Amino acid sequence: MTFEEMWADLAPIGRSSSSGGYFRQPWAAAESELRGWFAHAAASRGLRLESDALGNQIAWWDVGSGSAVLTGSHLDSVLDGGAYDGPLGVVTGLAAIDELRSRGVVPGRPIGVSVFVEEEGSRFGLACLGSRVATGALPWATARELRDRDGVFLPDALAAAGLGASDPGRWAELEEVGCFVELHVEQGRDLVERGAAVGVASGIWPHGRYRFDFAGEANHAGTTRMADRRDPMLSYAMTALAANKQARLADARATFGRVQVEPNGTNAVPSHVTAWLDARAATDESLQELVAAVTRQAAERAERDGTSLRVTAESTSGEVVFDASLASRIAGGHAVGGWPVIPTAAGHDAGILHAAGIPTAMLFVRNPTGVSHSPAEHAEMADCLVGVSALADTLERLAS
Amino acid sequence: MTFEEMWADLAPIGRSSSSGGYFRQPWAAAESELRGWFAHAAASRGLRLESDALGNQIAWWDVGSGSAVLTGSHLDSVLDGGAYDGPLGVVTGLAAIDELRSRGVVPGRPIGVSVFVEEEGSRFGLACLGSRVATGALPWATARELRDRDGVFLPDALAAAGLGASDPGRWAELEEVGCFVELHVEQGRDLVERGAAVGVASGIWPHGRYRFDFAGEANHAGTTRMADRRDPMLSYAMTALAANKQARLADARATFGRVQVEPNGTNAVPSHVTAWLDARAATDESLQELVAAVTRQAAERAERDGTSLRVTAESTSGEVVFDASLASRIAGGHAVGGWPVIPTAAGHDAGILHAAGIPTAMLFVRNPTGVSHSPAEHAEMADCLVGVSALADTLERLAS
Repeated sequence: MTFEEMWADLAPIGRSSSSGGYFRQPWAAAESELRGWFAHAAASRGLRLESDALGNQIAWWDVGSGSAVLTGSHLDSVLDGGAYDGPLGVVTGLAAIDELRSRGVVPGRPIGVSVFVEEEGSRFGLACLGSRVATGALPWATARELRDRDGVFLPDALAAAGLGASDPGRWAELEEVGCFVELHVEQGRDLVERGAAVGVASGIWPHGRYRFDFAGEANHAGTTRMADRRDPMLSYAMTALAANKQARLADARATFGRVQVEPNGTNAVPSHVTAWLDARAATDESLQELVAAVTRQAAERAERDGTSLRVTAESTSGEVVFDASLASRIAGGHAVGGWPVIPTAAGHDAGILHAAGIPTAMLFVRNPTGVSHSPAEHAEMADCLVGVSALADTLERLAS
Repeated sequence: MTFEEMWADLAPIGRSSSSGGYFRQPWAAAESELRGWFAHAAASRGLRLESDALGNQIAWWDVGSGSAVLTGSHLDSVLDGGAYDGPLGVVTGLAAIDELRSRGVVPGRPIGVSVFVEEEGSRFGLACLGSRVATGALPWATARELRDRDGVFLPDALAAAGLGASDPGRWAELEEVGCFVELHVEQGRDLVERGAAVGVASGIWPHGRYRFDFAGEANHAGTTRMADRRDPMLSYAMTALAANKQARLADARATFGRVQVEPNGTNAVPSHVTAWLDARAATDESLQELVAAVTRQAAERAERDGTSLRVTAESTSGEVVFDASLASRIAGGHAVGGWPVIPTAAGHDAGILHAAGIPTAMLFVRNPTGVSHSPAEHAEMADCLVGVSALADTLERLAS
């Protein structure tokens, strides 16, 4: 199976015919199909497949000895997401092994291709859930209390997917890993501006998810005078605009992309508006300042509206600076002047493995529009194939 | 069954134990129970029950001759609504018949108590659905295409409730009706300020529901620079604030109480935000001006955000001025100086029957907080009993 053939295999799985986007939520039908596809791809290459009770998978090329070199990414998607975010790293991992074999390379260390589940947090609200549990960063006692939007507990979702027979937890497979390299479609336009098909990540911006609960008083939309209202929608609306403005001022990112309204009726002033802030900035300090500024403006507006506000940090990830020597070995080793080294504002399993003490690096493949988490996400096939070759070079060097 | 006993019967039906509010959506379990309760209440009084294929009901006291006097209201609620909006008019109607009988009154005309379905529009999005179809204002060919939030078509919802065996349409029962009086809990504080337990409506403000569809571009919340976004959430947020401001300036009402976001993921800039504006004003002209002003500000912001906007009027109701002679007969006939005559900004089935050519009036019962469409909606029992007596007086006079 060539890269192109594998890519064509994946194209229809979980794709919405109306939007063209992907709905590959973990432990649902499309993702189960993807898990089966990966097992088949591993078997057809003679790779040994290991998986844990969450459905995390690693396909092992059992060669050489000593600590292993791991590559890979994820197969789940955001709601209505793109084709590349995740799958590109998995498929290039498999294709890079094919490439090494066709070069006649015999690595000195085992090489694995991993698939971590629920990287996007699109179902249970916590990004990198699979890698957090597998590295021990998230205890199962906490994870098992997570519920999806429909109120389904994580253990029940696992059971419905035929998983979770035993309690998930730290995954012994990761103890043998000496370093991790994740290839990913770039989620911005740095490489376009630099005219490079491939780049190396210097690190991941600190980021977090913060739930803003605004509470007011439900009332009749027709008869309640404007002055008599305590309308949390107004407090929220001002907060969404404030977040945008603060992020622009700080050269950071702030997004309200998810909102829940109670009772959400056309003719009722809402009683509650819950909204989630996704915030990211270049340093831990600037992220804290950004969230504090948004919270302050939200609280001021809530006071004017007669509503109340509670802010809860649902998940935060500190700054990740990838292993500098690993990044420079990868970038500098490239024949023509080295690959550019760029930061990313997106969180990845690589950040979780890095935090668990595994030297980690990331490769990016150019994205012509920079658009991501959208059906419009794209990478040219020629650039993807440069990515395969770059990853094969990297694995060859690291596993030598 | 006294008023108090009937009220106690209804209290638990469709009540949420967590919020204390009511979820009495049409053609679902709680509303079916209410329909059964009404049939029983009619039978126990020897009233003849008629119903149509939608589930609209009238309990008839077949006395006298000539055109009938109809009273009544509805039993459905908004999502998480109050106990009084609707049921108060139905229960006082039944209690008023009891009162007339205990006074020994023999009316010269038939008296009916009606229950119209889906008055709130909480399920199919169109307020007064039952009375619109029954009066012929809404053709069944249009109504049958309506879908609820889950995509269920109206005919399928009817079938699931054991209704709709034949096509609903104009309801012959209404052809015999000479006038209609709806008693309702006040949804404001006019009567509190006037120190009156009961008042008479002069008319209903014009009002409408307008769907605002903002379309932008889904993107990654972390990696997409603020300047590169086309975020419809920002366009919506500014519009919600603009609607509030315009309504305050115009002494009108504007509410965004319902919002739908696509894909509604924490780490994705939304592709679409759909929000519903509920707008009401004292005259048709001022309503048009209000909606035009909000639309203009929304369009300006959408242009700045690089998003697009489409505004659709989902339902509009012109100004209703109730039958002045009927109102003054009711108000002036009251022994102590007459009841106050006040306008309402809420829509009611009474407005639909008025538009169908039936002379119509409304009575209001004082609401101490003015809060409505909320679990906090309330009326004192003493005031409710004044309402029963007022309605009995009114029916006695109109049916004489």
